[in-house]
Amino acid sequence: MAQIIDGKKIAKEIREEVAEAILKFKDNNPALTVILVGDDPASHVYVRNKARACEKAGVISHTIQLDEDIEQCVLLEKIEELNNDTSIHGILVQLPLPDHIDETTVLEAILPEKDVDGFHPINVGKVVTGDTSGFIPATPAGIIQLLHRSGHSSQGKHVVVVGRSNIVGKPIGMLLLQKNQLGNATVTYCHSRTHNLADFTRQADILIAAIGRPEMITGDMVKDGVIIIDVGTNRVIDENTVKGYRLAGDVDYVSVFPKAKAITPVPGGVGPMTIAMLLKNTLKAFKLLTA
Amino acid sequence: MAQIIDGKKIAKEIREEVAEAILKFKDNNPALTVILVGDDPASHVYVRNKARACEKAGVISHTIQLDEDIEQCVLLEKIEELNNDTSIHGILVQLPLPDHIDETTVLEAILPEKDVDGFHPINVGKVVTGDTSGFIPATPAGIIQLLHRSGHSSQGKHVVVVGRSNIVGKPIGMLLLQKNQLGNATVTYCHSRTHNLADFTRQADILIAAIGRPEMITGDMVKDGVIIIDVGTNRVIDENTVKGYRLAGDVDYVSVFPKAKAITPVPGGVGPMTIAMLLKNTLKAFKLLTA
Repeated sequence: MAQIIDGKKIAKEIREEVAEAILKFKDNNPALTVILVGDDPASHVYVRNKARACEKAGVISHTIQLDEDIEQCVLLEKIEELNNDTSIHGILVQLPLPDHIDETTVLEAILPEKDVDGFHPINVGKVVTGDTSGFIPATPAGIIQLLHRSGHSSQGKHVVVVGRSNIVGKPIGMLLLQKNQLGNATVTYCHSRTHNLADFTRQADILIAAIGRPEMITGDMVKDGVIIIDVGTNRVIDENTVKGYRLAGDVDYVSVFPKAKAITPVPGGVGPMTIAMLLKNTLKAFKLLTA
Repeated sequence: MAQIIDGKKIAKEIREEVAEAILKFKDNNPALTVILVGDDPASHVYVRNKARACEKAGVISHTIQLDEDIEQCVLLEKIEELNNDTSIHGILVQLPLPDHIDETTVLEAILPEKDVDGFHPINVGKVVTGDTSGFIPATPAGIIQLLHRSGHSSQGKHVVVVGRSNIVGKPIGMLLLQKNQLGNATVTYCHSRTHNLADFTRQADILIAAIGRPEMITGDMVKDGVIIIDVGTNRVIDENTVKGYRLAGDVDYVSVFPKAKAITPVPGGVGPMTIAMLLKNTLKAFKLLTA
């Protein structure tokens, strides 16, 4: 029977650790500002969830809501203002941004020391070189914790990452490649241009699926004893549900489960870790900036 | 018969392209400053070769020689001075540095826009995200050119990188993974902690050896038709030579050659590309800074 890696439980542990650490600072609390541009309903839900988690952990959170059609320079001015505001320790611009705004320019405008999302190239670079002074993006940082806290070492293991996004695929591979206790894996990156994908996924001791295509990894594509980290959260039409859809991972849980040694469910696996790691990053920013 | 990828010839082509591009700027030339700390003889040779190549291409080059026991703060002041000097477009600190100096601090002190070695984390990050506004380190940039100019595409190929250094292994894998014409490879990273290395190297369509151990990759470790990029330049004792040593790659040329479709020799493969790509980066810095 596969071990089900309980992301909800592990995320709760981390949120409580953060809350406990913050208590020690007494009257002084970390503060996070989230900038939300436009009216994307999903983004609104995320931002609301972040705000709630912040409050519980003792992180002061502000949300700045900007119009969909705001000019880029106005957004950049707002970021500059927050960069200079010593009462703010973390800045997060909720993605995606409207098409007329250049994401790269915006992410590079955030002071790297306040970039709790870890998307500024300087923080990306630090993840690669193994410099721990920067911020690791929340999802890959969460995956490292899921593996570690559920007792699965990556030392000498073959990790196959399916997906090469800047937010998940690339950084998680780089983290697991590092010469350290939480790394030392042999890492293979697969993606849409990979020929014979199953030839690679079948070799995985640890398979990380971050593709964004529902149930694409099926039981015949993995070996017995694989550890599965499923990053996908896809909506699949399902008329038997009240909402008319259900959430599905990138992994076909039903066929993969019998072969897996351990697996993250969707929902309740990687998803809950994201906010927990964001809180952890905000605490780190606070410590660095107020030290 | 394996194609021998002629790094000397390709490097010469690139140096000539750079020289030609510089001619168009008439009286205005790119300027590179190399900082050399201490008396490492190998470093002195490299720096002299760089200076000679600069001169030929029309790049003004200065070398600043600092004492082995210089204080770190003095070195940092020197860098700051060069950062602010508008007549200098490229700054390169020759590695390795003496033990009492922190390499990370020094590399991060160089203005990213003048970091022609591409070692500043912001440039490392840009290589990862595919942002072409930064600088690619010379050796991986050279490997991309070697493959491209000798007619070998990485599209959909399985590239196995042996070695995970920040200077070669990590960036070359990230470059070949990118979603573009010179990338789109499936990439596997192997290293000292990889179990059953040969199981991975035998899968390689393109094998990049950047380990620093002479002739470690032998014929039985590769498949027929492999393309070999050998980054190693190791001195092996050889009493039959005048110098008492010979240069050997990380690949055992004699046993691998018969199986390879194409292979870079050592010397004369990857080595000559380094300075050529440094010149190309210096030209890029010049264009960016004087635009």
